[in-house]
Amino acid sequence: MSKLEDIVSLCKRRGFIFPGSDIYGGMAGTWDFGPLGVMLKKNLMDSWWHFFVEKRDDMYGVDAAILMNPRTWEASGHTATFADPLVECKECKSRFRADKIANNITESVTTEEFLNTHTKCPVCGKENWGPIRKFNMMFETHVGAVLPDDNAELADKNKAYLRPETAQGIFTNYKNIVDTIYPDLPFGIAQQGKSFRNEISPRDFILRDRECYQMEIEYFVKPDTWEENFEKMRALQHDFLANVAGLKSEDIHEYEVPAEDRAHYSKRTIDFMFDYPNGEEELMGLAYRTDFDLANIARESGKSMEYRDKKTNETFVPHIIEPSIGVERLFLAVLSTAYTEDEIDGEKRTILKLPTHLAPYKFCVSPLLKNKPELVEKAREVYNLLKEKYTFVTWDDSGNIGKRYRKQDEIGTPKCIVIDFDTLEDDTVTIRDRDTATQIRKKIAEL
Amino acid sequence: MSKLEDIVSLCKRRGFIFPGSDIYGGMAGTWDFGPLGVMLKKNLMDSWWHFFVEKRDDMYGVDAAILMNPRTWEASGHTATFADPLVECKECKSRFRADKIANNITESVTTEEFLNTHTKCPVCGKENWGPIRKFNMMFETHVGAVLPDDNAELADKNKAYLRPETAQGIFTNYKNIVDTIYPDLPFGIAQQGKSFRNEISPRDFILRDRECYQMEIEYFVKPDTWEENFEKMRALQHDFLANVAGLKSEDIHEYEVPAEDRAHYSKRTIDFMFDYPNGEEELMGLAYRTDFDLANIARESGKSMEYRDKKTNETFVPHIIEPSIGVERLFLAVLSTAYTEDEIDGEKRTILKLPTHLAPYKFCVSPLLKNKPELVEKAREVYNLLKEKYTFVTWDDSGNIGKRYRKQDEIGTPKCIVIDFDTLEDDTVTIRDRDTATQIRKKIAEL
Repeated sequence: MSKLEDIVSLCKRRGFIFPGSDIYGGMAGTWDFGPLGVMLKKNLMDSWWHFFVEKRDDMYGVDAAILMNPRTWEASGHTATFADPLVECKECKSRFRADKIANNITESVTTEEFLNTHTKCPVCGKENWGPIRKFNMMFETHVGAVLPDDNAELADKNKAYLRPETAQGIFTNYKNIVDTIYPDLPFGIAQQGKSFRNEISPRDFILRDRECYQMEIEYFVKPDTWEENFEKMRALQHDFLANVAGLKSEDIHEYEVPAEDRAHYSKRTIDFMFDYPNGEEELMGLAYRTDFDLANIARESGKSMEYRDKKTNETFVPHIIEPSIGVERLFLAVLSTAYTEDEIDGEKRTILKLPTHLAPYKFCVSPLLKNKPELVEKAREVYNLLKEKYTFVTWDDSGNIGKRYRKQDEIGTPKCIVIDFDTLEDDTVTIRDRDTATQIRKKIAEL
Repeated sequence: MSKLEDIVSLCKRRGFIFPGSDIYGGMAGTWDFGPLGVMLKKNLMDSWWHFFVEKRDDMYGVDAAILMNPRTWEASGHTATFADPLVECKECKSRFRADKIANNITESVTTEEFLNTHTKCPVCGKENWGPIRKFNMMFETHVGAVLPDDNAELADKNKAYLRPETAQGIFTNYKNIVDTIYPDLPFGIAQQGKSFRNEISPRDFILRDRECYQMEIEYFVKPDTWEENFEKMRALQHDFLANVAGLKSEDIHEYEVPAEDRAHYSKRTIDFMFDYPNGEEELMGLAYRTDFDLANIARESGKSMEYRDKKTNETFVPHIIEPSIGVERLFLAVLSTAYTEDEIDGEKRTILKLPTHLAPYKFCVSPLLKNKPELVEKAREVYNLLKEKYTFVTWDDSGNIGKRYRKQDEIGTPKCIVIDFDTLEDDTVTIRDRDTATQIRKKIAEL
C-alpha cells in the first residue's frame, strides 16, 4: 500500500474519516468526519480562528449564508467562467474532464484534436469523442416554490447556486462591516464554512472533494500599501503552518504564479505547495486581488464601496490581500506529517505524531488489568480527575496493554497513564510517551 | 416598534445579523452572521458541544456531508412526504402555503373548499385558487457532469438533495461508529451543521429561514430502557437551556405532543416551546423514535443494524431518543432573554444582559479622553494585558464615555474598564458594570 492508502485506511479504521453515505455504497466526492476526525478538525479550525481572528485586533468574523443572491456570481464572474472542459465518449456516453484524460498532450494541437487522435476512452476503449464543452462547477438549485412541471423561464427566475467559495460572503458584507464597525485600515474579514464544487472527477481522497470547509481572509488595505501587507500576510501564513498546524518547513514550497497563469483578478499570487504522500499539491493560496471584487460589487449593486480614511478624510476603494486555505487539505497535510511507522523492540507500529494541541485526546487512562476491580476503580478515579481538568481524556480497558498502546499511538494520544498494583500502594502511575514509547512513574497528585 | 423589531434592528446596527445578500437586495430566508453574531453563535455552539459531547463519556461526534446519497431520503421518507401544501392564485400566479393563508379555517370544510369561498389572494385581492399541491421542501440539485440540455432521465439519475436535517448523517454513520469504536450502550452520536429547507414563505426573522444550523443528538439505548433514558435526556435539556444558554425556566413550556399529532416514527415527543417576543414558538424537540430509522436503513441498505451486548451477547436493534435544536432559534431565545430596556439617571438605554460566558466580549478597555496621549498609552497597556489573558477584549475610544457605555451595553459587554488621570497616579481603573451601571475602582494588578 502507498502511504496515502495507509492514511485512508487508518482514517476509516479509527474513525477519523468515513466515505460519505458509506452505508448506501457512497456518494462520490463526499466524506464524513467520524468522532476522532471531528475532534482533530475542530482543533484545527479553532486554532486557525484563534490565530488569525480572536487574538488579533484587526480581524472580524462573518458567517454568511451558503445560498446567495445569484447576482453575486454574475458580479464575480463565476456564472460565466467557473467551468471545466467536459468531453463525452460518443460510444459509451461516459464523461470526463478533457484536460485530465488528454495525457501527454503536445502543445502543437488543440485538446480536441489530441483526444480524437491519441486518446482511447478509459471506460470502453474506443476513440470517438464529442466536442469539448464548458461545464460550470457550481451546483444549481431552485429557491422558492418551483414545481417540477413549471416552465423553464419560471424555474430560471428562481435559480440559485451553492456557493463555490466563501470569499464572496465576505466581499458582500464589507459594506455592512464598514457601516457598523468602521474599523481602521488595514483590517480583515474572516470566514470559515462549507463551499461546494461539482468536480467532474473527484479524486485523491479528501484533496479534491465536492464539498469542503474553507477558511478565508480578505484583508483590506490602502492601495499603495499592498506590497508590505502582502509580505505581512505571507509571513503570518508560514507562522501558522509551522507553529500551529505543526507542518515541516521543508514540506512547504512557495510557487510564485507567473503573470500568464494568474487568475485575471490577481496582480500577484503565491501558491503554497505541500509535499503530500502522492506528490506536491496546492495546500493554500495567497493572492493580491486589487480592487477587482469591490469594483465588481459596486458596479453590480450600484452602491459605493469607498472607504473614508479617518485621519485624512481621503476616500478610496481598498485593495485586498487574500489568504485562502481548505480545511480538508490542511487536515491531510497534518495527518501526512504526523503519520509515522517505526519499530519498538522489534515490533512494527504506526504512530500519529500530532502536536498535543491538535491531538483528539491528550491522555488515555487505563487499568493494567481489567478484571481486577480495585485497579479499575482506582483508574476510574484518575480518569475522572483528569477528565475534569483536561476534558480531552479517553478511557481504554480493551484487550491487553500492548494493544491499547498501539491503538492510542494510531490515534495520536500523547500520553497513556496506566494504573497498576504499585498505584494502590504508593499512588504513582506509569506515564508512557507516544513518540518514544518510554515510561516514567509519577505521583497522581503531580499529573 | 415591537420587541422583535427592536432586536432585529439592534442585530443589524451592531453587526450581529445582517440580511443575507443584503448588498443585492437580499435573498429571502437567508441571514448572515456579522462579527458579533459569529462570536455569540460560536460561544453557543461550543457550549452545547462541550456540555453534551466533550465533557461526557458516552457521546461521539460526526460531521457528515451535506450532499448525501439520495437513497438516504428514500429510506427516511423525506422524498415522499417532506412536503408543504402549495396553492397558486390563478389570477396573478402568486404562490402560498395553503395552510398559512387559510386563516380561521373551520374544521367542517377542506382547505381547498375554504380557500375558494373565504380567502382573497394577499397579492391581487382576487379569489380564484388552483388545486392544492404537495411541495417538497428539499432543495434539489444534480451531482456530477449533467449538462443543461441533457434529457430528464439522465438528469434524474444524478439528482441529489441538500440535507433537510442533520439526523440522517448520524443514523447512516451508526454502523461505522459501532464497527470502529464499539461503545457501550447507551451512547449518543452528536452533530452540528447546516440543514436546508425550501420554505414557501420564510418569515419571523431567523425563526423560519431556508438554511439553519442544527445541533442534534441521536441517543442509542436498549429498547426496554427508553423511558428512563428519555427522562434523563429531558432533564439534561432543561439543565442546558437554563444553566448554559441562560434562559429563564418560566419562558420554557413543555408541550406533550398527543399521539394523533406526532410524526409517524415517534412514540413520544415533547416540544420545548419558548416565549419569543412575538409569541410561543418551538425552540427544540425531544422525540422517542423507536427503531424506525435504523430499521429503514437496514431495509434500504440490506445491512444489519444490530448491536451485540458485550456482557450478555444478546443482539438487538437499539432504540433512539433524539434531542434536536436549531442554533438560530436558540440564538434568538438568548437575545430575547438578554434584551432589556431600562433607565439610568433619567436616560433610556438598551442592554443585552448576556451571561458572561456567551457575551462576545468580556471586557471593553478605553481611555477616558482620546486626545490625551498619556491616557491612550496607559489604556493600550491595560488592553494588551487583558487581551493576552482573556482574548475576548475590545478597545473603544470612539465618541464620549457615555456613548461608549451605551454601545457596550447594547452588545452585552459585562465590564467596561476606563483609564483616567487617577490611573496615572495610583494604577487604579474604573470598572463599570453593564447591568447595574455602578462603578468601582480597582488596582490594575487585581484585574
